[in-house]
Amino acid sequence: MNAEVNRILQKVLKRITPTREQRKRVEQLARRLQEKVSQTAREMGVTAEVRVEGSVAKDTWLSEEPEIDIFMQIPPELPREMLGNVCLKVAKKAVEGAKQVERFAEHPYLEAFVDNVRINIVPCYRVKKGEWKSATDRTPYHTEYVKKRLNEKLRGEVRLLKRFMKGIGVYGAEIKVGGFSGYLCELLVISYGSFIGVLENFAEWKGKTVIDLERYYEKREDELQLMFPDPLVVVDPVDAGRNVAAAVRREKIAEFVAASRAFLEKPDEKFFYPPPIEPFNPKQIRVELRNRGSTLLFLTFGKVDAVSDVLWGQLYRTQKALRALLETHDFHVLRTSAWSDENELNVLVFELEQATLPPVKRHLGPPLAKRRECKKFVDKYLGSERTVCGPFVEDSRWVVEVRREVVDAAEFLREKLRDGGRTVGVAGKISDVLKEGFKVLLNEEVSDVYSWNREFARFLTGFLTGRPWWLERG
Amino acid sequence: MNAEVNRILQKVLKRITPTREQRKRVEQLARRLQEKVSQTAREMGVTAEVRVEGSVAKDTWLSEEPEIDIFMQIPPELPREMLGNVCLKVAKKAVEGAKQVERFAEHPYLEAFVDNVRINIVPCYRVKKGEWKSATDRTPYHTEYVKKRLNEKLRGEVRLLKRFMKGIGVYGAEIKVGGFSGYLCELLVISYGSFIGVLENFAEWKGKTVIDLERYYEKREDELQLMFPDPLVVVDPVDAGRNVAAAVRREKIAEFVAASRAFLEKPDEKFFYPPPIEPFNPKQIRVELRNRGSTLLFLTFGKVDAVSDVLWGQLYRTQKALRALLETHDFHVLRTSAWSDENELNVLVFELEQATLPPVKRHLGPPLAKRRECKKFVDKYLGSERTVCGPFVEDSRWVVEVRREVVDAAEFLREKLRDGGRTVGVAGKISDVLKEGFKVLLNEEVSDVYSWNREFARFLTGFLTGRPWWLERG
Repeated sequence: MNAEVNRILQKVLKRITPTREQRKRVEQLARRLQEKVSQTAREMGVTAEVRVEGSVAKDTWLSEEPEIDIFMQIPPELPREMLGNVCLKVAKKAVEGAKQVERFAEHPYLEAFVDNVRINIVPCYRVKKGEWKSATDRTPYHTEYVKKRLNEKLRGEVRLLKRFMKGIGVYGAEIKVGGFSGYLCELLVISYGSFIGVLENFAEWKGKTVIDLERYYEKREDELQLMFPDPLVVVDPVDAGRNVAAAVRREKIAEFVAASRAFLEKPDEKFFYPPPIEPFNPKQIRVELRNRGSTLLFLTFGKVDAVSDVLWGQLYRTQKALRALLETHDFHVLRTSAWSDENELNVLVFELEQATLPPVKRHLGPPLAKRRECKKFVDKYLGSERTVCGPFVEDSRWVVEVRREVVDAAEFLREKLRDGGRTVGVAGKISDVLKEGFKVLLNEEVSDVYSWNREFARFLTGFLTGRPWWLERG
Repeated sequence: MNAEVNRILQKVLKRITPTREQRKRVEQLARRLQEKVSQTAREMGVTAEVRVEGSVAKDTWLSEEPEIDIFMQIPPELPREMLGNVCLKVAKKAVEGAKQVERFAEHPYLEAFVDNVRINIVPCYRVKKGEWKSATDRTPYHTEYVKKRLNEKLRGEVRLLKRFMKGIGVYGAEIKVGGFSGYLCELLVISYGSFIGVLENFAEWKGKTVIDLERYYEKREDELQLMFPDPLVVVDPVDAGRNVAAAVRREKIAEFVAASRAFLEKPDEKFFYPPPIEPFNPKQIRVELRNRGSTLLFLTFGKVDAVSDVLWGQLYRTQKALRALLETHDFHVLRTSAWSDENELNVLVFELEQATLPPVKRHLGPPLAKRRECKKFVDKYLGSERTVCGPFVEDSRWVVEVRREVVDAAEFLREKLRDGGRTVGVAGKISDVLKEGFKVLLNEEVSDVYSWNREFARFLTGFLTGRPWWLERG
């Protein structure tokens, strides 16, 4: 490792490693919460062993963003409903008075803010290894596994990797990001020995990477391929049947690969701390949208009644369905994206080559070999008002030129979404909102939204630029 | 065969079968020409056996359009140059005073008009079967084969088939048509036994038909498939290595199949005698072109110094090349066609979805696995003026949005053809003409050409309608 890289990493490391005071404060807070939750459970008659888990337990947290995970382990005999609702009640009571947000992964959990620190109070079953009853049951085993294998040096490497991934926007297992979890970062460092080791390996990405720390699949590589079709496979050391990286979206792996290359070629502190995006001012954005040459189509709608993960899941699903809908109607979709303030405004963006299509298109009929279908086709289009020309025979099949049924993308979406758009693939909760109302805006028509929402302005400015902020000519 | 079909066929047959007087006149003319050519050859010191071949020899000519083929068979020892030039001289001398046109197939021959009858004087070698030295050497053997197998009834069936194919526009081996030759019609009737038999068989077209009258390939079907990849294979009874239908264009087979079905479903005399196309008047055509929705792009240019077959070969080749050129630059080509008065005006037509493309498009870069190419790509497009947005990573490869280099089809063609367009595939003789000048016209801009050229007006009216004239709802 050259001196420049070393200098940068030392500098970042200093910034992200908790000081003795920070550590003391967070650990005391964690212990206090642990006791409080434990006591509240007792008071409410809930049997639960309460433990500190996550990055605080493993000492891999970033000094700037401590996050305390409190796990309530309940006996496996208790029914599934307990896990969610009853534990949620205990959690709410325990941090009464603090700001609270109900969250939902496989089951509900509570997010709270105490002394400006984010707290997650998460229920799980206390089970033997392999006898998992819920998705969070593995966590205590993860903590144990990682603690055993990390020393102070490696904990620093994990912190660097987390900070780097945050910087380039691929950190976090939440649906919105679909990136690398903290546990995954820890396993990558354990596997490759250092932050730079992880980057060097990903920079050489060839399309598929497998990490099997415990060698569960030694000499059974074929079986592994069958079990895990994902491009990145990190076999969970505490569960051979699970790929820790299964939920990482392909594009996040790709962005990490590209950023690893860029950093190794030209190391820079900025990768860890992205410069803020300075949004175009309202006049600039109008000029930009007018002169761009492509068409930006915005679908905006109001509050969706769902927790963050569900909201983003539905936004992405809807985005994908509407892209497909536009493409099957011959619109060339250049890019799409989704934005939400997770409260009152949601926006899906579609960048199109053009918003209106030429009025005539070719329509292929059956091959001549299918005599009966040919007759049907000819009869249909000879008598059709849509027929512009033909039918005629070309390359041994009937073809006709017809007037397109859909030429205007905005009009088409308005029509398809009026009833909520369930039939075209809009996700359920979003569909309910669309029924109440939505807007389809083209190019400068988004100016109003842009002017009064600075976060959206940042998002749109980044979208229009369209390249990773860290990208520079090499 | 039902009574209605029978009535139609009898009526047509009456019209196309030569009367005794017609036959006498044509046969006398043929004999006179045979003697004249024979005598002229002798006078010029050319050894040649002169024979009447073709439809007159086989008595399968249509009374409305007699065409006399006079063949000059020269000894195989004589060099190849003799076949063309010397025989041409003999022929020219023999029909001195008559209207003459030099034509060219594999070698030159002479077309002349004597007493309003078309005459072809064609040279060939007098060789044993199988020892072919030129393409026309087989003709005397064809005549012999067909004469032996046709009786009066079958000659009528051949006449019906020829007339039907003329009616629907698939008759004639010349390049302009690329259709069925007279000999091919005769073999089809010999094979299927009647005009209706031929139609019924083609109506059941499944994509490939093989006719092997002399069973040359019995139990060697695999070999036959390898030798003749064409969709229609009619093994030449006098040459097992030749497919008589090799030069029939796929679209002509397809049109014959479609017309056969239409006739069998709804028999009508019109198939044999197409109604004349009534061209739109100049005002109608302007309205038609303006409201159509697609764009018609015309490339017009002047006289090409080439005989008909060469001209049409070059027109089609150029049409195909320019279509490909437009398509590789993202223009959607709906249809193309070519027209020529075979003298001073040639027109290629391209019907496009739109004449101008949206200014921005996606451009796919290398997959992430190719690290070096990725670096090159990113460096190139980060610094490019054409880049609108990106580069960014999508589906594990780099992508960029760029400004299109070609947006205007007419401008693009003008630029590419200015130097004759050899590099984009324009055929040689046409390229020479383009260098001297050409026009690219859009939609109504063709009005002038349309107004002063009635044959072009007919062609364009047919092209705009775009369906076979005989097509009706079944």
